[in-house]
Amino acid sequence: MTRIAVDAMSGDHGAPVAVEAAVASLHAHPELEIVLVGDTETLNRQVARHRKADFGSRLAVRHASEIVGMSESPARSLRQKKDSSMRVAINLVHGGEAQACVSAGNTGALMATARFVLKTLAGIDRPAIVSPIPSRRGHTLMLDLGANAESTPEQLFQFAVMGAVLAEAVHGVDEPRVGLLNIGAEEIKGNTQIQQAGKLLGDSELNYIGFVEGDDIYIGDVDVVVCDGFVGNVALKTSEGLGKLIAQFLREEFSRNALTRSAAFFAMPVLKAFRRRVDPRQYNGATFIGLQGTVIKSHGDADAIAFASAINVARMEVEQQVPERISSLLAHNLGE
Amino acid sequence: MTRIAVDAMSGDHGAPVAVEAAVASLHAHPELEIVLVGDTETLNRQVARHRKADFGSRLAVRHASEIVGMSESPARSLRQKKDSSMRVAINLVHGGEAQACVSAGNTGALMATARFVLKTLAGIDRPAIVSPIPSRRGHTLMLDLGANAESTPEQLFQFAVMGAVLAEAVHGVDEPRVGLLNIGAEEIKGNTQIQQAGKLLGDSELNYIGFVEGDDIYIGDVDVVVCDGFVGNVALKTSEGLGKLIAQFLREEFSRNALTRSAAFFAMPVLKAFRRRVDPRQYNGATFIGLQGTVIKSHGDADAIAFASAINVARMEVEQQVPERISSLLAHNLGE
Repeated sequence: MTRIAVDAMSGDHGAPVAVEAAVASLHAHPELEIVLVGDTETLNRQVARHRKADFGSRLAVRHASEIVGMSESPARSLRQKKDSSMRVAINLVHGGEAQACVSAGNTGALMATARFVLKTLAGIDRPAIVSPIPSRRGHTLMLDLGANAESTPEQLFQFAVMGAVLAEAVHGVDEPRVGLLNIGAEEIKGNTQIQQAGKLLGDSELNYIGFVEGDDIYIGDVDVVVCDGFVGNVALKTSEGLGKLIAQFLREEFSRNALTRSAAFFAMPVLKAFRRRVDPRQYNGATFIGLQGTVIKSHGDADAIAFASAINVARMEVEQQVPERISSLLAHNLGE
Repeated sequence: MTRIAVDAMSGDHGAPVAVEAAVASLHAHPELEIVLVGDTETLNRQVARHRKADFGSRLAVRHASEIVGMSESPARSLRQKKDSSMRVAINLVHGGEAQACVSAGNTGALMATARFVLKTLAGIDRPAIVSPIPSRRGHTLMLDLGANAESTPEQLFQFAVMGAVLAEAVHGVDEPRVGLLNIGAEEIKGNTQIQQAGKLLGDSELNYIGFVEGDDIYIGDVDVVVCDGFVGNVALKTSEGLGKLIAQFLREEFSRNALTRSAAFFAMPVLKAFRRRVDPRQYNGATFIGLQGTVIKSHGDADAIAFASAINVARMEVEQQVPERISSLLAHNLGE
């Protein structure tokens, strides 16, 4: 059995979405158990709204009296909200009552709390945020997406190890190709960290394919793209912004006049298929990797379908023993 | 009159495209003069292919015996190819025979040669690469897009000054809003350079609106986005990659079967309007800003329409005296 603690008060939509996602996940995965963490009364009421939600001991509710606000300072929430749904959910992982935690809460607070409570794995200086990004041939794992504003070459190397483990364990990629994000102008060979990280990776047993550029993320000739959290976060947010811009331009062009609206009618099934293909909800669930335990961040505005994707990411990482595999690969690369 | 030196042997398509673009530009702008630089025989033959190409002294050809290869090392080309079309075109700007140079050649070599021959403006440590990026409300200027892998807070400040001048002089924006690209997680307030650059900008007379994130580039609530060249280049290339991925997904969905192909038939005019709107050719022409002279880089695979856009960028920057205005704004911000 896999047991997941869900911070059910988190995100823009709070308990209704978290509970609906939990119920759907329990239906989909008979080996799954979920502990909903938050205000007991609210959560019981939400559970009662679902028919066929009698999962026996597979669904539990654990009380937490506080909620971390979406724009609250991480340091403050860590110090002052010791009974928040986020903190209690992470405590359950630390105490062994759950193997993973899923939260749609404040990213900074979740990272700070997870680091403080769970600590990093031996050999890992700092956790990173990793998520699959859609590509021509499936998807590319990219990290760090924003946990660290600056990274040493050694930390970039650790990100590579963690990304490779995730690609292999959860995404079924044999000998994942690892690339280091760099810029291509001939005059510049990248900054000093990148140079040194490249050397560390070249000397390792990872399947390191060298430098890649921003557009390679979407081409799919690389399985794991490594960068510092500043660069990764900018690349991710830039992509989100461009995606929204293109969607808006398409909508505007198809609703310009009667003629284009009738074209939209004919094109609708195709546009819907296209939208399903780029639907960010299926990629929801970013992993805070490198911790002694599994912590998954769901997007703040995730709906129930997206939130259930995040729960599924947690389930797979627990089943595939991602933290344990990272420790073992690190020992192998550094030890001998 | 504005006189532009065109490195006519550059880019993936070489002389035919450069000459076609030059001829079209001369037709479009009666006050424009162009010096085509490259192998005289090749260029005269290309000019002769165009009817109505009798521009008198407005179109000149200047011989250069060498060509800088697209993957040649910048240092090598600078040292060994002193009679390359790129070098001779930049020399014309240095000698005052032209006011701007346009090249579709190797970015690194063009930057290295331009810096070596023209030098930076007083008060500018390093040139930057700047280009407009389409946004919901028009476009956003972003710099540096890859000239510098690392930047000090002072250099980021200089980028802001140069971007603001370009927005005002060429893009007609009054008091352009300047934002500093940062990441948003609450735990992290960005790296040290960003923090310090933010202070410099806050104390300046620029219309500094604070930190912006990757998605803000495409929203259009900021006119100038400042970042170091590593981050900017990754953001640009990532966007190019995503744009191509989305185009491919759309193509695939519309050509899936007979039904979707007939939908494509009805949707074609709309899809064409959409494509025109996101056509990167209209944004071709990145400025190497901060030099004593105007140097515009056209995309390597630019066709004649795109190359003509780059020539037009050069023309406007010369007419609006961009380098002079940068010097004056810098003196104003630092002097008193």
